[in-house]
Amino acid sequence: MNLISTGAVRLHQMTIRQGDPDANTRTILALMARARADGVRVAVFPELALSGFMAGQDWLDGSCLRACERGLARIVEASQGVAVVLGTVAAYRGRLVGAAVAAEDGLRVTPDESPLPFVPKLLTPQNRFDGASGFLCAGAVAAMEGVALHTLFSPFKLGGMSVAAWCGQALPRGYDPARQGAGLLLCLDTRPYTRDRPLGGPPAADGVPAACCCGTGVADTGKTLFVLAGGTQARWPDGRIGHAPLLHEAVLDFAARPPDEAVARTDHAAPRKVIEVLEHACRLQLARLGLSRVIVGASGGIDSALTAALYSRVAGPENLLLVNMPSRHNSSTTISLARRLAVNLGCYYTEVPIQESVELTRRQIDACVCERPGGKKRELSLSDFAVENVQARDRSGRVLSALASAFGGVFTCNANKSECTVGYGTMYGDIAGFFAALADLWKVEVWELARCYNAEVFGGEIIPQGSIEIVPSAELSQAQNVDEGKGDPLVYAWHDRLFAAWTERPVPATVEELARGYSECTVGELTGYPGDLRALFPDEASFRGDLTRMWQLYNGLARAKRLQAPPVLSLKSRTFGFDLGAAQLPILNEFV
Amino acid sequence: MNLISTGAVRLHQMTIRQGDPDANTRTILALMARARADGVRVAVFPELALSGFMAGQDWLDGSCLRACERGLARIVEASQGVAVVLGTVAAYRGRLVGAAVAAEDGLRVTPDESPLPFVPKLLTPQNRFDGASGFLCAGAVAAMEGVALHTLFSPFKLGGMSVAAWCGQALPRGYDPARQGAGLLLCLDTRPYTRDRPLGGPPAADGVPAACCCGTGVADTGKTLFVLAGGTQARWPDGRIGHAPLLHEAVLDFAARPPDEAVARTDHAAPRKVIEVLEHACRLQLARLGLSRVIVGASGGIDSALTAALYSRVAGPENLLLVNMPSRHNSSTTISLARRLAVNLGCYYTEVPIQESVELTRRQIDACVCERPGGKKRELSLSDFAVENVQARDRSGRVLSALASAFGGVFTCNANKSECTVGYGTMYGDIAGFFAALADLWKVEVWELARCYNAEVFGGEIIPQGSIEIVPSAELSQAQNVDEGKGDPLVYAWHDRLFAAWTERPVPATVEELARGYSECTVGELTGYPGDLRALFPDEASFRGDLTRMWQLYNGLARAKRLQAPPVLSLKSRTFGFDLGAAQLPILNEFV
Repeated sequence: MNLISTGAVRLHQMTIRQGDPDANTRTILALMARARADGVRVAVFPELALSGFMAGQDWLDGSCLRACERGLARIVEASQGVAVVLGTVAAYRGRLVGAAVAAEDGLRVTPDESPLPFVPKLLTPQNRFDGASGFLCAGAVAAMEGVALHTLFSPFKLGGMSVAAWCGQALPRGYDPARQGAGLLLCLDTRPYTRDRPLGGPPAADGVPAACCCGTGVADTGKTLFVLAGGTQARWPDGRIGHAPLLHEAVLDFAARPPDEAVARTDHAAPRKVIEVLEHACRLQLARLGLSRVIVGASGGIDSALTAALYSRVAGPENLLLVNMPSRHNSSTTISLARRLAVNLGCYYTEVPIQESVELTRRQIDACVCERPGGKKRELSLSDFAVENVQARDRSGRVLSALASAFGGVFTCNANKSECTVGYGTMYGDIAGFFAALADLWKVEVWELARCYNAEVFGGEIIPQGSIEIVPSAELSQAQNVDEGKGDPLVYAWHDRLFAAWTERPVPATVEELARGYSECTVGELTGYPGDLRALFPDEASFRGDLTRMWQLYNGLARAKRLQAPPVLSLKSRTFGFDLGAAQLPILNEFV
Repeated sequence: MNLISTGAVRLHQMTIRQGDPDANTRTILALMARARADGVRVAVFPELALSGFMAGQDWLDGSCLRACERGLARIVEASQGVAVVLGTVAAYRGRLVGAAVAAEDGLRVTPDESPLPFVPKLLTPQNRFDGASGFLCAGAVAAMEGVALHTLFSPFKLGGMSVAAWCGQALPRGYDPARQGAGLLLCLDTRPYTRDRPLGGPPAADGVPAACCCGTGVADTGKTLFVLAGGTQARWPDGRIGHAPLLHEAVLDFAARPPDEAVARTDHAAPRKVIEVLEHACRLQLARLGLSRVIVGASGGIDSALTAALYSRVAGPENLLLVNMPSRHNSSTTISLARRLAVNLGCYYTEVPIQESVELTRRQIDACVCERPGGKKRELSLSDFAVENVQARDRSGRVLSALASAFGGVFTCNANKSECTVGYGTMYGDIAGFFAALADLWKVEVWELARCYNAEVFGGEIIPQGSIEIVPSAELSQAQNVDEGKGDPLVYAWHDRLFAAWTERPVPATVEELARGYSECTVGELTGYPGDLRALFPDEASFRGDLTRMWQLYNGLARAKRLQAPPVLSLKSRTFGFDLGAAQLPILNEFV
């Protein structure tokens, strides 16, 4: 019979609750019941559909594994009248493996030629979660079983079909399940949303229907929150492709009639889509942490303005408080911009000046005499540069933290990825807060999203144009006077490209290679910078000096700062916290 | 000939510089030259002797791998007149593997029956570094090569001997290299110091000489600093064992005469040894970060007193500043204790009161009116509990940070493991600082080490007895008045044992199991608590309530706090930061 008779196979793009197998089991059982009622023969669920992705110690918590096993038993029992394929975690000789499993008529189904009741995941270094799982890879399982790797990937007999199913996008080299007689290919996957990389389609298959089934929701590894992108897809034998939407729960039936060509793929990288991802992630993050009220330190600049716009939509303006905290270096220009933003968003606004406290601190430190036995004394004094950091810490460590208690909420970290890369920020100061939603976005992307908010979301100038156009500045000294056009030491149009060439590629561009590129005019090719580098750096020496300083900051002091920074929302294929650091990178890299 | 003729085999317990293959290569070449001059036939070096242990992204930095390959080439070239065995990292089909390699007469030596020129590491879940390395395991390599796992572990022919060498403590199940004709067994290992677990001896061998060769120095994974313990050991065929010292560079020759039985193994868990490890680690940490001056916020309590004692020895009293920062809740008792400590240590001392600043903050927040368009207003006020946290943040985020700038140094985090477990501390307050040296020590261990400092290091009451005996208290409110004997909500003698049962075991004791243990009187067995639980909790309900609250804190709010906490020195087999959290654990565990 035709494998793709109406409704024969249903792909469930379900929301997976991280670390909650009982809830996920209930979701799956309800979806199976509906599938059975709809005459579906095979119900498909994503990778790790019971546990969600986790890492480190939590995998070793026996109660979670037992709950997954309990859940699976109930799902197997419920496979009367509808067969089921899903991804889960399996115990194997004292280790854990990511596993594709199947059941039908109330019994587990074993892959045709495999000695094991599951298909173990083939871990790959390209998959950012594989390394952190601590799972045993399929290669090691094959070695321990004494069988060829391909054997473990043989198809399941299911719903009258031969169904090849596995977790993750990789198959053993040279193995083509369609040639082994599989009539349906199912790739169960967990795909974090990444703006810089498309999601990838269903597995390659020659004249055979194929699909990838992906989860939605969020998952975190402590320092980094991931958005599970969804993006389930089905490819008909004639090559036509059906798409489930990004981010949201959906089902996609392998129906007899291929999908309408008009259902085009969403552009996942469009600014409007990134805003949707941001809002979706922050909404879920507030909900899972049990938070409703949010405070944003609003400087009048663009990072805090975008953050405020985001949370006005996520938490609602009635739960949002913007606070401006001027010192004597803050211009009336930026104070007015912060005030106007609050009025435009319809949220709460207040001002808490910090000059008095900063002066108290300066006075106290300057009056400090340190004594040692024997009458040795040392007098201390604060440098002007040190007072810049005092201001930043006064805002976060003193005012925002106390306001958060009083308002019954949390305060945000408004840092962007450009600042995070080189540690342009103050510990316990602007590098603080419950969550850093923008920390995977370059400064130029922050501007792009702010413009998109006004144009496509608000339909008007809610984020003041002044905040978009003003020179980026920390306003911590007169050298950063915005009214004189002075500001940050970073030239974002260039440095964003440079930092991306270091952080967003598997193999970063080297300082040597880039410095050579200056005289050979290849820096544009190496980084994608479209401008004239000579307008920024008159000669190679000045270019090399800037490069070296930035590289040393990125791998030096900025690492120490990121270690104590708030958790970050991942929007790229390499994010600070998980892929790039904090967690696992040494605080010191001798290679710098 | 006798395999263990005088000086035939030399084990080099070398200091490995993390991420610096060039420096490590120079060290190895110099040691090889000396070995050659001494007539050594086989020079042995530890696991990852070229790169040191690393994790995450740094492994993928091509320049480090290339430097390891360059270093290895020079070592192979230098193997004229002395054979060499060492651990390094090898590239294999686009992945990295931990590898034991050997060379003699200027050429690489391949294991007898292996298709590969190295022995890949058998990764195990028991080894805390294996998961983080992202290395391909030996099982997967065997599968990809299509050979039995044992084949990859066959011995090298080296120095006229058959030498089995591998990385890490594990060998393939059922594989006994001595039975395969190996006349010498060499386990190349990286062993972090752990107080709660002995280091383990050389590999089991029947009538064959065997050794483990381990490195010294420190290595960090960002959030956690590890001390490489050394502890190289050699076992003669008659069972006698020779030990290299812990922590420090040494060579151990497999000399013709077995070692004197009197060279006993050091007690690695003795308080005096732990102090040696603490000082060694902090000394190396300051040196590698290029720091010399240290500030300790000295409360008069025991955590800051121990920290101050430690840094007075590591940085020297002339580089140490103790600062007491009283609010109106601080007693003259504790202020005098802090002052006396500074006098005893001979270091700098100062006082910076915080009451004025705390009152300013309270006034500013209480005066805050938040307005929304349309005239909606909200008045804010700070609760007494919120003011407790204001004090803690005022000390670290305001005073200590500014003092660090003025003094030209860093300030320490004095948190202990008991506080870290349940998040008993304030973010940007006492949970701040450049490094948390005591954060893997229970409160009872802090007391133990303080007493040991006086008795065995200082030989007198340098840490005031009053700081050891005073009730532990944060002194943030009148409810924590030390002069009335009031203090922390933790009963350390009990809670330390409870928290250890959660954090320091592979499978943590469950709340359910412990609660049942109350009526069954098995809590002592489950946790090692020797006291009478009924003296603390009159009935099961009160016991269960406390258990549940602590478990929720440990897996809830404390996780979020640990995410932004300073890096921690590891002294146990499970440490916050690396094994237990921050880095990889989700901020939320649905299982709580």
